Amino acid sequence: MKDVVYIKTLYRNEKDYVDKKVKISGWIRTLRASNAFGFIEVNDGTFFKNIQVVFDNKLENFKEISKLPISSSISVTGTLVATPDAKQPFEIHADAVVVEGMSNSDFPLQKKRHTFEYLRTISHLRPRSNAFSAVFRVRSVAAYAIHKFFQERDFVYVNTPLITSSDCEGAGEMFQVTTLDMKNPPLTEDGKIDYSKDFFGKQSHLTVSGQLNGESYALAFRNIYTFGPTFRAENSNTTRHAAEFWMVEPELAFADLSDYMDCAEEMLKYVINYVMEQCPEEMEFFNKFIDKGLLERLNHVATSDFKRISYTDAVELLLKSGKEFEYPVKWGDDLQTEHERYLTEEIFKKPVFVTDYPKDIKAFYMKLNDDNKTVAAADCLVPGIGEIIGGSQREESLEKLSARMDALGLDKETYWWYLELRKYGETMHSGFGLGFERLIMYITGMSNIRDVIPFPRTTGLCEF
Amino acid sequence: MKDVVYIKTLYRNEKDYVDKKVKISGWIRTLRASNAFGFIEVNDGTFFKNIQVVFDNKLENFKEISKLPISSSISVTGTLVATPDAKQPFEIHADAVVVEGMSNSDFPLQKKRHTFEYLRTISHLRPRSNAFSAVFRVRSVAAYAIHKFFQERDFVYVNTPLITSSDCEGAGEMFQVTTLDMKNPPLTEDGKIDYSKDFFGKQSHLTVSGQLNGESYALAFRNIYTFGPTFRAENSNTTRHAAEFWMVEPELAFADLSDYMDCAEEMLKYVINYVMEQCPEEMEFFNKFIDKGLLERLNHVATSDFKRISYTDAVELLLKSGKEFEYPVKWGDDLQTEHERYLTEEIFKKPVFVTDYPKDIKAFYMKLNDDNKTVAAADCLVPGIGEIIGGSQREESLEKLSARMDALGLDKETYWWYLELRKYGETMHSGFGLGFERLIMYITGMSNIRDVIPFPRTTGLCEF
Repeated sequence: MKDVVYIKTLYRNEKDYVDKKVKISGWIRTLRASNAFGFIEVNDGTFFKNIQVVFDNKLENFKEISKLPISSSISVTGTLVATPDAKQPFEIHADAVVVEGMSNSDFPLQKKRHTFEYLRTISHLRPRSNAFSAVFRVRSVAAYAIHKFFQERDFVYVNTPLITSSDCEGAGEMFQVTTLDMKNPPLTEDGKIDYSKDFFGKQSHLTVSGQLNGESYALAFRNIYTFGPTFRAENSNTTRHAAEFWMVEPELAFADLSDYMDCAEEMLKYVINYVMEQCPEEMEFFNKFIDKGLLERLNHVATSDFKRISYTDAVELLLKSGKEFEYPVKWGDDLQTEHERYLTEEIFKKPVFVTDYPKDIKAFYMKLNDDNKTVAAADCLVPGIGEIIGGSQREESLEKLSARMDALGLDKETYWWYLELRKYGETMHSGFGLGFERLIMYITGMSNIRDVIPFPRTTGLCEF
Repeated sequence: MKDVVYIKTLYRNEKDYVDKKVKISGWIRTLRASNAFGFIEVNDGTFFKNIQVVFDNKLENFKEISKLPISSSISVTGTLVATPDAKQPFEIHADAVVVEGMSNSDFPLQKKRHTFEYLRTISHLRPRSNAFSAVFRVRSVAAYAIHKFFQERDFVYVNTPLITSSDCEGAGEMFQVTTLDMKNPPLTEDGKIDYSKDFFGKQSHLTVSGQLNGESYALAFRNIYTFGPTFRAENSNTTRHAAEFWMVEPELAFADLSDYMDCAEEMLKYVINYVMEQCPEEMEFFNKFIDKGLLERLNHVATSDFKRISYTDAVELLLKSGKEFEYPVKWGDDLQTEHERYLTEEIFKKPVFVTDYPKDIKAFYMKLNDDNKTVAAADCLVPGIGEIIGGSQREESLEKLSARMDALGLDKETYWWYLELRKYGETMHSGFGLGFERLIMYITGMSNIRDVIPFPRTTGLCEF
């Protein structure tokens, strides 16, 4: 559609348009009309806020316009008039309103409030509501901030594979991918499923992490990041787990644990600042209607130096705190969310990296510290959510990595290429993983992961 | 690692560093040494080119360094010395060389040339070669150019779901996703697989397109794009098909076919220009060693106005051309690659949009033209490859869309939400799909899709 100006442009460059003729197009959010005149709130998708269109019965199609259902699309030509005394900065006095597309009168997103649960059942329409237009614009801007951050620092973006015949951490809970006939699968002579007849000639799954593949690229390009979908077939029906979600997995060669923490801290601050700059209207909305302390908390995170403390010291602090936790604190056990939140919210009141965890609660590829008990891992905890980033220095020693895999009973045949990354250059490297949806929940204050994914997939749910 | 300068920084800001002490770290690409001195080509992953390090027997570890295997990692401290008479602009005269990580002497990427086929068997190491470091840096930069193009124009990036219980075009060739036990799947009373017991409570697959979901967001945000993985379980072993690949699928509301073509043309030119600006060394390499006419062709595309011609006129031109094709040209049949390439390479010698195809060879959601025979679809053909983009205006009329689905025997129950997008606002909209790997092949001159995907997945191949 030609000659149309976006509502975002009007808001951002008001002075260029006031008292001039403009043409807009968009969807009706609200409409009220008397016999003489009417008001339409139009949203064109480019901006969080609507623009008010004032029309009167001099329009030849006044009656038709007066009765348009919500969510019909229209184009409007008229004069942009400043309204310094009103809530909105300006409005359009319409010369002409053209119906571009009719809606039905039973459009489910009428002005009354709906629960987020209900809105999930109309995931195809919910981005037309205020809350979800804010969430998904922020999601888009935050995704771009991540790309921008890494690309400006010359990190290479790597698309690691989603279908895989290995699994990253022996994590187990994976989706199988197949083209075999489930009803009559081919069998081998000894009665097992004959995966040599499957599409890839072997059993294959959806990946739980791109890290190992990412390491292979970091050891060529030095600094890389992945940003793509990841899958978990966990049967957990919580507000923080989805079967399909997006992960950012940067990997840095010639980098130790503290280099990773520097990078992760800088990245988090960058993304938060970028979203606050680019989406002030959306962030104000979240702060007002979703989570009252949001902006203060984000500003605090963006301006704090993150605390760094060892797991051993953190355990000691938790024990000394006198606080009664549901799960007891004990050296050797993983920290629970309640412990993590107590550290970041009560003790330090800012983001915290907890470092050097016991090796037995961490993955095989993490670098063994000299104490032979802990590994060079670090999790980043933030107020309001707990763990948001997990990372580590990777074991670069072929000998130590092999020994660790043997000790854990991992099949080294499967990981032949991962071991070869060490065989051909034992280069120090470190990396981390950020759950993108967790970050969006953190930035928007939304409390259910289903409300920050356009069409969420969880146990028993695969609609749209 | 602190105090290190990247080789890219040295090349891009030579003057700031010449005659100064610098410290670099990286991997040995080549090494030769006599008893008195030696030369190491070091690549640190940040830049296509290596830097030459000159060292002599004043180093106390001279003997150790002289014998280091290729792909070992080192750090070097020394003076950056301009070498105006040499091939390279400068070199480092080393004061110290520290071994960071040893490689094995049988590193497979020695200086001799390898076939791309062989390099695919070491996909974990091939980014350490010149050709693949160029390919995958360009892939990263091109991906960013796509995000940059759309974000600068306020398009909202949407992550459409990969696991789906519907299929976009009735395309059929999909991977099934399941957590059922393949050996003993639960059965219903009438002996079918009981998918109500599967993870999502119904049969589910990997998506072949995010378009339908994308439309739902375009009808809220006006302009959106997806950029994510897509899957096809096609048993076709060609140089242009992969089972897992990335697609860009923009969707524009209040946009007709010509608006889509404007957007697609601008995007292609933007991405090509951005890559040529950001990666001149890589592009020169491709032009010299992979595809001699590459830069000329890309420059031509970036500066041409794309031709637009109707399918009907294109068929007439092909028939008139007198050229003998393997497949005959006939109105009503789809164009073959040979026809497409003849149009773009021989007749117009530039990119061409062919528009308004017969409805029977196109998808159900495309907008029917007034002639009732053709649809408002357009494919973009480029010299050297044929079709690179396919798109259309979407049928916004609920009545016409329903009628078309009925005529094709599609199950309207499955598409209830897609039909509701029309029920609640019959807004004109258009969109297109770009196969990202096709674009990378086009920009790099690489002729096999397996060589532009880090870890390719094709029939029978799911390694790493």
